[in-house]
Amino acid sequence: MKRTKIIDLFRPELIGQEVCVMGWVRTRRGNKHVQFVALNDGSTVKNVQIVFDMSQFTDEQLKPITTGSSIKVDGVLVESMGKGQSVEIQARELEVFGTADPEAYPLQKKGHTLEFLREKAHLRPRTNTFGAILRVRSALAFAIHKFFQEKGFFYLNTPLITASDCEGAGAMFQVTTLNLNNLPKTEEGQVDYSLDFFGKPTALTVSGQLEGELGATALGAIYTFGPTFRAENSNTPRHLSEFWMIEPEMAFYDITDNMDLAEEFIKYCISYALEHSLDDIQFLAEHYDPELVERLRFVLDNEFVRLSYSEGVKILEESGHKFEFPVYWGADLQSEHERYLVEEHFKRPVILTDYPKEIKAFYMKLNDDGKTVRAMDVLFPKIGEIIGGSEREENYDKLLGRIEELDIPMKDMWWYLDTRRFGTVPHAGFGLGFERLVLFVTGMTNIRDVIPFPRTPNNAEF
Amino acid sequence: MKRTKIIDLFRPELIGQEVCVMGWVRTRRGNKHVQFVALNDGSTVKNVQIVFDMSQFTDEQLKPITTGSSIKVDGVLVESMGKGQSVEIQARELEVFGTADPEAYPLQKKGHTLEFLREKAHLRPRTNTFGAILRVRSALAFAIHKFFQEKGFFYLNTPLITASDCEGAGAMFQVTTLNLNNLPKTEEGQVDYSLDFFGKPTALTVSGQLEGELGATALGAIYTFGPTFRAENSNTPRHLSEFWMIEPEMAFYDITDNMDLAEEFIKYCISYALEHSLDDIQFLAEHYDPELVERLRFVLDNEFVRLSYSEGVKILEESGHKFEFPVYWGADLQSEHERYLVEEHFKRPVILTDYPKEIKAFYMKLNDDGKTVRAMDVLFPKIGEIIGGSEREENYDKLLGRIEELDIPMKDMWWYLDTRRFGTVPHAGFGLGFERLVLFVTGMTNIRDVIPFPRTPNNAEF
Repeated sequence: MKRTKIIDLFRPELIGQEVCVMGWVRTRRGNKHVQFVALNDGSTVKNVQIVFDMSQFTDEQLKPITTGSSIKVDGVLVESMGKGQSVEIQARELEVFGTADPEAYPLQKKGHTLEFLREKAHLRPRTNTFGAILRVRSALAFAIHKFFQEKGFFYLNTPLITASDCEGAGAMFQVTTLNLNNLPKTEEGQVDYSLDFFGKPTALTVSGQLEGELGATALGAIYTFGPTFRAENSNTPRHLSEFWMIEPEMAFYDITDNMDLAEEFIKYCISYALEHSLDDIQFLAEHYDPELVERLRFVLDNEFVRLSYSEGVKILEESGHKFEFPVYWGADLQSEHERYLVEEHFKRPVILTDYPKEIKAFYMKLNDDGKTVRAMDVLFPKIGEIIGGSEREENYDKLLGRIEELDIPMKDMWWYLDTRRFGTVPHAGFGLGFERLVLFVTGMTNIRDVIPFPRTPNNAEF
Repeated sequence: MKRTKIIDLFRPELIGQEVCVMGWVRTRRGNKHVQFVALNDGSTVKNVQIVFDMSQFTDEQLKPITTGSSIKVDGVLVESMGKGQSVEIQARELEVFGTADPEAYPLQKKGHTLEFLREKAHLRPRTNTFGAILRVRSALAFAIHKFFQEKGFFYLNTPLITASDCEGAGAMFQVTTLNLNNLPKTEEGQVDYSLDFFGKPTALTVSGQLEGELGATALGAIYTFGPTFRAENSNTPRHLSEFWMIEPEMAFYDITDNMDLAEEFIKYCISYALEHSLDDIQFLAEHYDPELVERLRFVLDNEFVRLSYSEGVKILEESGHKFEFPVYWGADLQSEHERYLVEEHFKRPVILTDYPKEIKAFYMKLNDDGKTVRAMDVLFPKIGEIIGGSEREENYDKLLGRIEELDIPMKDMWWYLDTRRFGTVPHAGFGLGFERLVLFVTGMTNIRDVIPFPRTPNNAEF
């Protein structure tokens, strides 16, 4: 008999029909006359209840059905009298695929802490919480592709292994095939990278933006969506060593087009998740963050406030609020400052623009004041910066000037400069850390809980 | 005035309207009365012709408009008298964004070899050929997400940095933050990896499958789509050091379900590309591979032949064909064998099943004969193996037996074995090398031409 996924069971036309379900047992309870099994197959956070009439099954048959075991059940779908469920299955046939020794299986009925489950990352997707998070994550990933594809953007795969380290966005992981216990050396006694796989030192990328600009100045509008790496030794609930980034880049966009796109984009993603993953989001709201759905709807229903960094700093300075880090014009804003503007002052998402050039990347377009650049950061409640972007400096001489000012090696820059040397165009783009978005939409607070297998200092398990 | 993308110009209702276009100049020709510019903005392989009535423009104004320069034009869209184009724009206003010195700009009118363009990978997306390839690649990537999402599969991001090297699928790149010119050593004089970023040796993944199985045995059905790495020193038109893989994994699927899914999946992708990227595919067919469209339609219109490895080997042995590599039961089939079956014998895509266990991975389900495993390889014309997959061994003891036979270290395997220890289920999956699919759909023959920035031995430019 053909299997039906549990998510597809909740349809009136199936009532009275014979169905076949397969999945993992969440719980079993009952008495000698009747036994109830809550079954989940990962397709939804909802379990289906299987009712075993014990005049037709033996105790022996049901004995292996403990939490975590896997079974196949044929039976009739009927309306349920039970609270909190619309349908249930009256079992006719049972097959046990696999048992789960209650002494050994770590995911027993009782609730586990998120910390405990982080140690069991290979099994935690089987819990309601991580099932919900991973389904929301998947829906958000698809929303991202759908949004850009429907707008005529092209998905561009920028390289992971790179020989340039020019953006200076963070510490990098080195990639090598040299035998570290027997390194080839040059005559000067240094490592001889000419014998390494790529003939030179290489590392894992910290951003696909520069290559993204190559794509945008050819295909018009592109987006990347791929893994990115930071080798920083920071053990915080906000940092991962390996995470996923989305970086759209658009020819012929100025900073205003860029802000419009960013706002539309992030609202589209949230709206898609609410539409396609509401059960999961509600489950997470109930268990972790009661204001979650309200917060998501609030972002959808309100225009983001747009103001300059200078105006933002003025508001912070005049707020009378005591911040841990001092705030003054020229300071790199901290999460506490960003969240104050969003949560206390405006009570709405905020887009800050026109930051001092000293605290932003070399490729951002210089304003006429000579002091600020056309950066734009989108600031969110609970998260702080969720998107960072800018209009890019398209003038060859000005860009070269910044590169020289900052002593960025030309060996890494000639190909990037070629986009300004040949047919340069105004263009803009931004970057979104995917896990920050998943954090916001799931209401989780630790970034290690929104990626299946987190990589952090001293942790590369599974 | 709002910009219109060139792909959106070819609509009857726009005729007679004022439009604004921005893009890069492909060519300019004409005389002192009238000048014609072919403009492309990357949204489509089609150029739009801009007509400059030279009674309204000066030579000086048009002088910077050489191949590769970037311009903005306001004008009226009119029906074109010219051959091969339906509309053109009568220019009213011109702005030059950026010039492209004809002495320096490498992409002049004349056709370039693909080899030459590989050296200019930062600019080659601006050519018709690479624009077309990258747009097809993007469409295929979206088709993949759409196919799986519509089937209720969840996108799972498996880790790139891994501490296990258990699959043995290939040589790996090491990832480290140790200073190679000043390595910490243990008392025994070996590299002290306890001081490395993750506290142990780590490498870039060769497959996300094992983690994919963790996802499938929790969420029911997942797919991965991400970068994968091989540090093999092979300089061939079929190998990349960094490439993208798609790996779906499904609980409750047997090998037949797996074959059905693989065939439906690949036909869906090809069909999607033909529907959404026909202009690009036709361009590539015209210039590189006249039989391309026919070949794609042929795959769509025919059921794949399914037969066992043993039957396949018998056909090859009895073919009388002279192969470079000998063929016998137990031999790992080479591309020439696979292509003979597909192109000469069956003249259709072929799915070979039930390979000898010795030439397949340890996790494949053993058949009752004790000699073969439930592997399935999908073989394609021109490509050879495009998909490899199997039903997985779900029996804990049998899987453990294979792991011990092959001396795979248990430090890498305990978490994988847990999927069989707790609630094991029948399951299956497969892997598709994304670039192989792009090769097939674009008709290209060198894999370095279907990824934006190829990584191969001694090559990590851009």
